Amino acid sequence: MRLSELSRATDVPTATVKWYLRVGLLPKGTPTAANQARYDVTHVRRLRLVRALIETGRLSVDASRRVCNAIDDEDVPLHEVLGIAHHALAETGAHTTAGTRAISAVDAFLDQRGWQVRNDAPARDELAAVLTALAGLRASGAPPVDNDDSVTALLNPYADAVDTIAATEVAAIDDKLPRDEIVERVVLGTILMERASGALRRLAQEHHWTARHPT
Amino acid sequence: MRLSELSRATDVPTATVKWYLRVGLLPKGTPTAANQARYDVTHVRRLRLVRALIETGRLSVDASRRVCNAIDDEDVPLHEVLGIAHHALAETGAHTTAGTRAISAVDAFLDQRGWQVRNDAPARDELAAVLTALAGLRASGAPPVDNDDSVTALLNPYADAVDTIAATEVAAIDDKLPRDEIVERVVLGTILMERASGALRRLAQEHHWTARHPT
Repeated sequence: MRLSELSRATDVPTATVKWYLRVGLLPKGTPTAANQARYDVTHVRRLRLVRALIETGRLSVDASRRVCNAIDDEDVPLHEVLGIAHHALAETGAHTTAGTRAISAVDAFLDQRGWQVRNDAPARDELAAVLTALAGLRASGAPPVDNDDSVTALLNPYADAVDTIAATEVAAIDDKLPRDEIVERVVLGTILMERASGALRRLAQEHHWTARHPT
Repeated sequence: MRLSELSRATDVPTATVKWYLRVGLLPKGTPTAANQARYDVTHVRRLRLVRALIETGRLSVDASRRVCNAIDDEDVPLHEVLGIAHHALAETGAHTTAGTRAISAVDAFLDQRGWQVRNDAPARDELAAVLTALAGLRASGAPPVDNDDSVTALLNPYADAVDTIAATEVAAIDDKLPRDEIVERVVLGTILMERASGALRRLAQEHHWTARHPT
């Protein structure tokens, strides 16, 4: 198909398709004439994925390119793909620098939960960054995070909830599928469902808030 | 205290403090000389809050200003403050336009859960945007979202988990506190703990993934 047909098939404007081609997020088509190329179903699939990563997942162009490269490169082991998706998401999260005390508190918490996590896991720093911010916000009514017990008290309800979710998510991945399908599922499940989880939490908050404070 | 002392007390660079003053995120101090002003503990508190909203919560300047205005304006009812925090967070989430079919699916899901949510709740559109993206990604192994049953099957485990979290969060707010303290707690709990929840989910994913795929 031509670029205009690719655009129509995916509902992505031609200008956006051209931009994705220019920044290397979409592989070039097969040249057919001076300024024309032919695209196929692999382009449709990749274009939808890229748009989901950028517009729905809010990843940067660079992070999306790293995710796509990890999908395409069969030498990247599966467990690193999860790390690459996590790195990409962490870029969209907390930017505060985590204090060393908060990093120790997160490590102690992970130990206590028995969660095996690599030292360079970006979510570890992101969680520590939130604790660092909360530590400075006691005057604004932030919960205490000044020792391991208070950190555990704050995080345990969240950890219990996400533990169930993550176990379900990982169990749902069928190891017998081809590598590229597993990788795309892991990436989509990690990135898009992070957005869905956040939205669902806010909907549940509104429901519980309104139940307690009827207008 | 002087601006330099305010900067030192909060560990925010003076250039950043000046920028927050310029864009109206931090109230001006009391003038003491031509180019000098005095700041007090209310500035320390507000500066820490603003930095947490922008750097940890990843809110835009505009969204942070709206949140701060809602904190300061006693005429804004409490339930609207939650909505303002949710609007601010939604800006950092999915940008894809939600299809009308996905919006109907989200409404059916909310009905089924018995969650009372306003029609203009931004998280409703954000969740629908994720479903719209997933619908185009079946070829990439995305879970089916083509009818109400498949949407329920996908979202229910997440909804169960966040329902518990949201109920705990709302119950933890002491209604006897002064309005401004309640508002700041609601804002911090909503925005910062969204980042913490996401990070915790990824840590739990890595733990479960590694347990199943030892390296």
